[in-house]
Amino acid sequence: MVQSFSHLFSERARGMRASEIRELLKLTQRPEIISFAGGLPNPEAFPIKDIKNITDDLLTKRGPQVLQYGTTEGVTELREALAARLKRDKGIDGDLKNILITSGSQQGLDLFSKVFIDPHDIIIVSAPTYLGGTNAFASYQAQMESVPLDEQGMIPDLLEERLWKLHRHGKNSKMIYIIPTFQNPAGVTISESRRKKILDVVANLDMLVVEDDPYSELRFDGDDVRSMKALDKEDRVIYLGTFSKILAPGFRCAWLVASEEICQKLTVAKQSTDLCTNTFGQYVAYEYIARKMVDRHILLIRKMYKRKRDIMLKAFARYFPKGVTWTKPEGGMFAWVTTPPAVDTKVMFDQAIANNVAYVVGTAFYPMASGGRNSMRLNFTHPTDEKIEEGVKRLGSVIEAEIGATSGKRRGIQRQRNGIISGV
Amino acid sequence: MVQSFSHLFSERARGMRASEIRELLKLTQRPEIISFAGGLPNPEAFPIKDIKNITDDLLTKRGPQVLQYGTTEGVTELREALAARLKRDKGIDGDLKNILITSGSQQGLDLFSKVFIDPHDIIIVSAPTYLGGTNAFASYQAQMESVPLDEQGMIPDLLEERLWKLHRHGKNSKMIYIIPTFQNPAGVTISESRRKKILDVVANLDMLVVEDDPYSELRFDGDDVRSMKALDKEDRVIYLGTFSKILAPGFRCAWLVASEEICQKLTVAKQSTDLCTNTFGQYVAYEYIARKMVDRHILLIRKMYKRKRDIMLKAFARYFPKGVTWTKPEGGMFAWVTTPPAVDTKVMFDQAIANNVAYVVGTAFYPMASGGRNSMRLNFTHPTDEKIEEGVKRLGSVIEAEIGATSGKRRGIQRQRNGIISGV
Repeated sequence: MVQSFSHLFSERARGMRASEIRELLKLTQRPEIISFAGGLPNPEAFPIKDIKNITDDLLTKRGPQVLQYGTTEGVTELREALAARLKRDKGIDGDLKNILITSGSQQGLDLFSKVFIDPHDIIIVSAPTYLGGTNAFASYQAQMESVPLDEQGMIPDLLEERLWKLHRHGKNSKMIYIIPTFQNPAGVTISESRRKKILDVVANLDMLVVEDDPYSELRFDGDDVRSMKALDKEDRVIYLGTFSKILAPGFRCAWLVASEEICQKLTVAKQSTDLCTNTFGQYVAYEYIARKMVDRHILLIRKMYKRKRDIMLKAFARYFPKGVTWTKPEGGMFAWVTTPPAVDTKVMFDQAIANNVAYVVGTAFYPMASGGRNSMRLNFTHPTDEKIEEGVKRLGSVIEAEIGATSGKRRGIQRQRNGIISGV
Repeated sequence: MVQSFSHLFSERARGMRASEIRELLKLTQRPEIISFAGGLPNPEAFPIKDIKNITDDLLTKRGPQVLQYGTTEGVTELREALAARLKRDKGIDGDLKNILITSGSQQGLDLFSKVFIDPHDIIIVSAPTYLGGTNAFASYQAQMESVPLDEQGMIPDLLEERLWKLHRHGKNSKMIYIIPTFQNPAGVTISESRRKKILDVVANLDMLVVEDDPYSELRFDGDDVRSMKALDKEDRVIYLGTFSKILAPGFRCAWLVASEEICQKLTVAKQSTDLCTNTFGQYVAYEYIARKMVDRHILLIRKMYKRKRDIMLKAFARYFPKGVTWTKPEGGMFAWVTTPPAVDTKVMFDQAIANNVAYVVGTAFYPMASGGRNSMRLNFTHPTDEKIEEGVKRLGSVIEAEIGATSGKRRGIQRQRNGIISGV
């Protein structure tokens, strides 16, 4: 007899829910659907030939080493190469004792949560924000508080206001989670002055910063903005970087940079979590840097993704009805589209699927259910150029029909605050 | 100014300690030392040529797929192949909905802990037991209670006695963690009748069983014993298997089998932990099964490890002084050696290192510090044949000297209970 053992679940597990987004994504898998819903790099951006040369050499010359268990901290050569690269490109100081290899940045978020979050701890996030971050925090029973974004990213004044309000109610947050550059989902970038202001605000309240930076190497226009970790003088920032967008996600190879104290604790936590990140992928990533393939290849990725972003933004202008607005990301993988308030993108989703086009509904990115009702995230890196144009065209028609259907039905629709992205 | 943020650590993180074993292992890395301390497969057992053929083909024919993100559950083809193999070889029933790919079995232990352990929950383990298991449980603030082993593994009567004693004190355990076959560290195997008895005992108390089975395919002598999962009629057993010992650990590719309900919850937990196991390694593992390389290769590994075990056991008989006893593992990777009670293997460790031989002290495998003082774990799979012989010879001299040095100093030494492994 098959029994249920759900009564034995831990309290944290009882709160875990299968992601709504995940269920929606299943609907978008049909081949006739043009999907802007995923968050995948384009497979044409994978340096397959380089990888093949590397794996051949590694297996021929270093097989016993690259197939064996490795240390929990990660392959030393890879960490050294990353330290040099972070110094050169990002102005981030750090050596071996500050760098931990993780099984994707998602593991960085999990380890960080395991080491810092007690049940009911408050984590500050952006609204909207990356679901994988909030899922990790929630899995350790954190409470999320969100601060709105505008075109320049998180708004420091609103952050400060929120934190002091919490403080007055006897609640203090341990940390803030930020994707400062080409944010997922909104595509916006926090300016350097705002980054400094945010660091000042959190320093006053003795908070930590998790800087999740998967996209900054995918810049198409404009100037680099210094990372928060480079601006950080107190080791208050834990920086997360990844090979998923500059090499390939299939190796699950990422890294984090933190103070020695924090790095050591995260390493102990990682040891009981998966012993070590897959050694093979780490050596591939190392060779990819050591053979100077990475910089050359990033230029190719940038060129491809810039073209795709341009096609998408041009198609928005051409096919979207009046009243629809969108962010203009200078890099990364996503644009964020806001429809007139009468449209509910969740209601509209069925129509989109019926018209063979898909997106992620905005509400999915608001852990507090505080917004996103008339927004959606669109990925421009994965579809082919032709499908981007055609998909936006289809979506334009769907939005137009939905605006028509909802005109007059403005009951209960909240007004938008000026400049705030998809705010309520 | 670099600050300390240890005051922000979670309660669970405050209890995390760097593994003592890990610090000891660092001492054993010097090339002149013959180390029996690690738990590594022999790199000569890695099917490097097969892997090279597979990776070449995969990158040539399926590059975009094997380098992309995968589903959290794992690559479908791999899970199907595992289901068929588990049915054929182990009599374990299960299909896609029962199998989750994990980033090493260690991740299975972590996910299981995350989903089932609340702080202060009681987990039953063997004494001695695998440190990676107890570390995972402890990282979620479990309490461990241990039950002694003898040459046939965990003793069901003592398990029952312990559980009812806890029960009378109002304490109930949710689960028991067992490595039934070629246990790490003791090398012993639980007989089928004992497995059934253990399942009866835990069913009466509505407990779950985590069956960790990394070694059963490495049998050198004797007959297979049915896995607890195959004997389980109530989906009470979560079964963990791994490619680390039959392919290579460097891919961090393992699997678990559980009821659909439990599998779903573990999948949700995994999603926020690392999104998915590295896709590349999963496809390599799949091809390794699909091309029928695995069964042929396991025969080679068995042959190699049997030879090494034989050399080690023969050397024990030849070089160890009177009063030293050891287990006779029919497979796996470890033997467990018990010296006369006057010897403290931790005290002796410095002498061993000075004589260029290393082991893991027995106490490391007793989370409750309840035993192992005059025991040690020896790995026979990693050293070369010559080094096994020479290392045991050195160790024999070290033990002999230690017995001489401690003779007469028997104050405070506890008597051994008959048959119990390294009991106190």
